[in-house]
Amino acid sequence: MQIHEFQEMMKQLYFKRDSERGVNGTFNWLVDEVAELGEELKGTDKEATEKEFADVIAWLASLANIYGIDLEKASLEKYNDECPKCDKSPCQCTF
Amino acid sequence: MQIHEFQEMMKQLYFKRDSERGVNGTFNWLVDEVAELGEELKGTDKEATEKEFADVIAWLASLANIYGIDLEKASLEKYNDECPKCDKSPCQCTF
Repeated sequence: MQIHEFQEMMKQLYFKRDSERGVNGTFNWLVDEVAELGEELKGTDKEATEKEFADVIAWLASLANIYGIDLEKASLEKYNDECPKCDKSPCQCTF
Repeated sequence: MQIHEFQEMMKQLYFKRDSERGVNGTFNWLVDEVAELGEELKGTDKEATEKEFADVIAWLASLANIYGIDLEKASLEKYNDECPKCDKSPCQCTF
């Protein structure tokens, strides 16, 4: 599924509630989901960890919907087959 | 671009470095990128905010590469045209 299709699916499912919650409240949910992913990464339950990965991209897409940007377009404007810092593929940054 | 294609692009660009850093170090980078997104969301620079959205999905994809999961598959197993909690579209959860 394309990134923008996934974002659109999140819009269909959650846009009304997400809009009511607003950017700040939805960002806080994203932070919570990232923390939950971090907890699962410490353990051994791969299925549970996969669900937390799903939650993080889902909340990121929801946040993009409320903020009013196309997550796919934004992603490909920064990352498109070369590192945005060194312009190489694979990245050759020395930091 | 499909989610798994974006993840593959991140792999081509960054897998060697990401592998050396490991899951914990890469998760910490993801947390930092989410914090940077939060800072930009407080401001008015939409272009800068879009770049932070791009960074968050990029680091999430990098983390998925190191952890060894397909982010698209994981996402669609949890979210696929209905809310995973109430099984409705749009979501009708009452919490």
